Amino acid sequence: MKLAFIGLGAMGLPMAKRLLEAGHEVSGFDINQQQLEHFAKAGGQVASSALEAAQNQSLVILMVVNAAQILNLLFEQRLADVLAKAACIVSCSTVSANFAQALEVQLEAKGLRLIDAPVSGGIVGAKAGTLSIMASGKKGVFEEIKPILACMGKNLYFLGEQCGKGSAMKGVNQLLAGVQLAVAAEAMGFAAENGLDLKQVYEIISNSAGMSWMFKDRVPRMLEPEPIVASAVDIWPKDLGIVLETAKDASYPTPIASLVHQLFQMTSNAGWGKEDDSSIVKLYETLSNTKIKNLSKENEI
Amino acid sequence: MKLAFIGLGAMGLPMAKRLLEAGHEVSGFDINQQQLEHFAKAGGQVASSALEAAQNQSLVILMVVNAAQILNLLFEQRLADVLAKAACIVSCSTVSANFAQALEVQLEAKGLRLIDAPVSGGIVGAKAGTLSIMASGKKGVFEEIKPILACMGKNLYFLGEQCGKGSAMKGVNQLLAGVQLAVAAEAMGFAAENGLDLKQVYEIISNSAGMSWMFKDRVPRMLEPEPIVASAVDIWPKDLGIVLETAKDASYPTPIASLVHQLFQMTSNAGWGKEDDSSIVKLYETLSNTKIKNLSKENEI
Repeated sequence: MKLAFIGLGAMGLPMAKRLLEAGHEVSGFDINQQQLEHFAKAGGQVASSALEAAQNQSLVILMVVNAAQILNLLFEQRLADVLAKAACIVSCSTVSANFAQALEVQLEAKGLRLIDAPVSGGIVGAKAGTLSIMASGKKGVFEEIKPILACMGKNLYFLGEQCGKGSAMKGVNQLLAGVQLAVAAEAMGFAAENGLDLKQVYEIISNSAGMSWMFKDRVPRMLEPEPIVASAVDIWPKDLGIVLETAKDASYPTPIASLVHQLFQMTSNAGWGKEDDSSIVKLYETLSNTKIKNLSKENEI
Repeated sequence: MKLAFIGLGAMGLPMAKRLLEAGHEVSGFDINQQQLEHFAKAGGQVASSALEAAQNQSLVILMVVNAAQILNLLFEQRLADVLAKAACIVSCSTVSANFAQALEVQLEAKGLRLIDAPVSGGIVGAKAGTLSIMASGKKGVFEEIKPILACMGKNLYFLGEQCGKGSAMKGVNQLLAGVQLAVAAEAMGFAAENGLDLKQVYEIISNSAGMSWMFKDRVPRMLEPEPIVASAVDIWPKDLGIVLETAKDASYPTPIASLVHQLFQMTSNAGWGKEDDSSIVKLYETLSNTKIKNLSKENEI
């Protein structure tokens, strides 16, 4: 199949590679020249602009940073005007439910079809093609592009016939995951402050009612002196910001997510925004007298 | 073995029964007459007072509500004066790390030995003998009573030679579990507000980064109209209160646990304290325009 892929960043590039590996013909664009070179090496057709990549395409996947970039591409750079008739746009970025819902209306007015399909699973999932894809939009369109989605994701969820439901589902996941990451840091600091063996705490919690997926995944990196950046701190002020925006639109109260949004914003502002998101533990270290990272070599998990 | 068991409540009675089933000779006391009758039926020796139960015993297990009850029993009712020489006291109640540490010093002055051994796993775990027991105190004493603990718990963790470490570990677990229960309610309300199918949300989150043990365990009860009380709301203002007290003693900041303590206090004050702790979802229902419970019969999991 022939399609366009716009946004070949940390997530987009491995997702596009999966499509190339499956034999699809992908025309791609990104503002980062280095990413385009990686894409070309993997067999991708490098376009000179997003507009050129999208020209006459019946399917375009957008994996850009935010809603503003989506609007810029579709309406300022005018991608929406050069796509094939009744083309399908798959938006994989994390956006608010309201934005996705409004975008569907705008695109329908131009005879275009939107699938709101944010993803979960990070860079690891993108590389392995094991992402969770939370899709919403017209059922028929979803069924049509399912083989394409299946190249990138293992769990394909259909959330409903209205765009926005996929983004809302992503919001539910980010709300939980963000809070559970932050509270893992709060709890590990509490454990260190009380002189507990942090490796033992990790083992006990992994088998107790306090267990969460984020605890099991991030705490080992919290204890490392300089973990690799698997997912950056700065994702959280952004993603929890979208959750709060969606909640505000619905007058729904989110006291816990609001607090945790603030904690991630503080962590970013303190200078750790580009670090691995397990670095929220540094906020607790800094605001207490507790050493959590690298307390002893034996604490490495 | 011959021992005393004080506090035959929702947790204590099934724990004592496990000891009786294993063939131990247990002298027990509780202020609730009905609980004593159940205990007698299971083969326990009913004492007329805590003091009588403890008389000349070398081992006494305390499973009472809080630190005040422990102090009352040991020093006002004078249990500490009638136990056998060098007797071992196993405290299974949830208390602050500082309290357990100070109690050890007080008991040592009387030639008595304390094991600080809070438990996790709820009534289900108490009945099945599959509790997690987080013990601290003298290693030799712990080894001595290990066969007794093994009748009640499946996972026996030794946290260190100083009383208080076990209670601190329990605090780490309650901090995480309490926050993860509350945020599960916040997230399910957010999902309902956005018109998502709550059963599908449950399935997706159970396999996503947002997963927690509490989410998987409590969300089905959040969706039921009137779930059985497996663990009451009122446990959380108490247990998170102990976490906050321990953190305050150490000048350690707990912004998330502090907020969630308030949310559970509000849930209790609003009249749902004796209900199943999944009823924190009613706080979110009440403070938004969202119906979460029993949205439709299909939402039952």
